[in-house]
Amino acid sequence: MVRTAVLASGTGTNLQAILDAAKSAGPFEVVLVLTDVDGCGALARSQAQGVPTEIVTWESCGGDRSLFTLSITRILQAYDVELVALAGFMRILTSEIIEAFPHAVLNTHPALLPAFRGAHAVEQALEYGVRVTGVTIHLIDEEVDHGPIVAQMAVDVLSEDNAASLRARLQEVEHQLFPQVLADWADGLYRVEGRRVIRLPAPGLSS
Amino acid sequence: MVRTAVLASGTGTNLQAILDAAKSAGPFEVVLVLTDVDGCGALARSQAQGVPTEIVTWESCGGDRSLFTLSITRILQAYDVELVALAGFMRILTSEIIEAFPHAVLNTHPALLPAFRGAHAVEQALEYGVRVTGVTIHLIDEEVDHGPIVAQMAVDVLSEDNAASLRARLQEVEHQLFPQVLADWADGLYRVEGRRVIRLPAPGLSS
Repeated sequence: MVRTAVLASGTGTNLQAILDAAKSAGPFEVVLVLTDVDGCGALARSQAQGVPTEIVTWESCGGDRSLFTLSITRILQAYDVELVALAGFMRILTSEIIEAFPHAVLNTHPALLPAFRGAHAVEQALEYGVRVTGVTIHLIDEEVDHGPIVAQMAVDVLSEDNAASLRARLQEVEHQLFPQVLADWADGLYRVEGRRVIRLPAPGLSS
Repeated sequence: MVRTAVLASGTGTNLQAILDAAKSAGPFEVVLVLTDVDGCGALARSQAQGVPTEIVTWESCGGDRSLFTLSITRILQAYDVELVALAGFMRILTSEIIEAFPHAVLNTHPALLPAFRGAHAVEQALEYGVRVTGVTIHLIDEEVDHGPIVAQMAVDVLSEDNAASLRARLQEVEHQLFPQVLADWADGLYRVEGRRVIRLPAPGLSS
């Protein structure tokens, strides 16, 4: 069982999907939920399921991004974490976490990267007028929403969509895709080659 | 029947799909195929089907983009064209054609715009490592690969893909999507609202 930490800042719907998947199927277990927002929904969900939680607020690190990242990284190391899932974690982290967990920090983004990076992807996709958007799961690197892409799934934009309706359909896809990618990662099904992430055809096979 | 011109520079596989669709289903007819490349495959295909053809070479316009566009626009007007399909037309046109045919010049692009604009979209998508790319049909505007998006369809990138294999799958989709969009355009199913193109639910209904 791959020891996994989930970082979240919000209501924790992605976290819930990951917790459910870990409980029912594995091959990863959530050993820690870490948040930067005391009192957030993600915290309550974790406590309800008896998952250990930690809080590192931005303020407790004096708004120093490097110190903030280092504090989180040390906690992850103390929990012997092997895999880190950023599930609606709204702070940008520095390279210290990538160095500590190379090719093991996964983020989810509500657009088909490289289109619509940043915090307003759903609104920007609607403003641009795309007919297809989607969800990207990627490894983080030094740039925001830029690291090697592990998986993507397309979602059609409907003529009647607004940000709320489109976001809801993107989240549905995210709740399936992210736990699946974590499971496949834990099963060793991904091999990173530069920017390309090769998905191996089946467990135990090499290609 | 909406009088349609197809502009092409290459082998004409998109043109062929459009000619086939026009013949079998309408509601548009191809009244002209215009090319900038004498001797190209698109020219041969048109002549084989008895479709009128015109050639306007870049050189005949002294490499003047505005003059080149104006020459083409005048020919399109002489043929009483209502709809223009850029089907692998490899020259950039200026705004004169947009002014003459507002919201009626459609282009196809082998990526999910706004990702991977320009002439090397397939190669760039592979280099970036996306897992989903696709085809975009859009109205042209003053910027390259930028106008309002009419339709998009996603295509999965496979771990074993190279540019040739991915391009082949994109073209398959293009050959279905572009004729369908032309038919829907001819049926009056699209309404342009700024950057967003609304697809009406069914012929004759307003939404």
